[in-house]
Amino acid sequence: MHFTQATDYAFRIVLHLAAKPPGTIVSGQEIAKQEQVPVQFLRKVMRFLNRAGIVRSHRGVEGGFVLNRQPEEVSLLQVIEAMEGPVELSRCLVSAEGCKIGCSRVCPVHEALQGVQATLLDSLHAIEFASLAARRREFQKKERQEDES
Amino acid sequence: MHFTQATDYAFRIVLHLAAKPPGTIVSGQEIAKQEQVPVQFLRKVMRFLNRAGIVRSHRGVEGGFVLNRQPEEVSLLQVIEAMEGPVELSRCLVSAEGCKIGCSRVCPVHEALQGVQATLLDSLHAIEFASLAARRREFQKKERQEDES
Repeated sequence: MHFTQATDYAFRIVLHLAAKPPGTIVSGQEIAKQEQVPVQFLRKVMRFLNRAGIVRSHRGVEGGFVLNRQPEEVSLLQVIEAMEGPVELSRCLVSAEGCKIGCSRVCPVHEALQGVQATLLDSLHAIEFASLAARRREFQKKERQEDES
Repeated sequence: MHFTQATDYAFRIVLHLAAKPPGTIVSGQEIAKQEQVPVQFLRKVMRFLNRAGIVRSHRGVEGGFVLNRQPEEVSLLQVIEAMEGPVELSRCLVSAEGCKIGCSRVCPVHEALQGVQATLLDSLHAIEFASLAARRREFQKKERQEDES
């Protein structure tokens, strides 16, 4: 029931880019180091995020990665779906064939899980990276203040 | 991100028992047939449900399985946890060690996922098997009426 490790890394990578001024190109090396993402994972994650239109890559000496949307337009849900495909709590929600006894019309568990899943998707979609980046800045400011005192 | 297939079967098995009058012992054969659960899965699922105190087994010719609690006291969440252990959306929520950079104190994603997860657990805990069994009876009544008309 966990998100994959690649998704955990994707959250950090998008957060790193979302915290920069709009249009900032950040090198893969910097992201890997700052967010402690192994380089082979970074490449994999970037392929998925690029395909979903969440980041763009720039080649060359000054190359790297840039967020392809406004941070407030990228949600946790979008990053999860970019990495793992649709979020489905139960196989029975994937399709009628997901349920071995084809019970979607008469199955109260199916109906209940549909409701839970809709709430889950809404919660994940409501969290966007502009707010997450702002929250991280708050945390970092507090840490600095604690270090100084 | 799916529940396991064993959990899907567990939902049906508990629903089957919850739909019977309190204390009814149902044979494994009947459950397997009615709910289309392969017998080897039934045994596995019953071991987990028994360990969690959700069902009790009775040996002998008239043996079988019985719900060990009132149906309204068994929730979807309890069945999931019996089968899979704690529901954790992300590795980073499992423990401080789940997060490679030990960021729980300063990570806004961790904080956000904690909120989403709390909502998810509440939703899954709010759904209990007395209501699911009642809903199934409604579905079945409607089906019978459609067949008759």
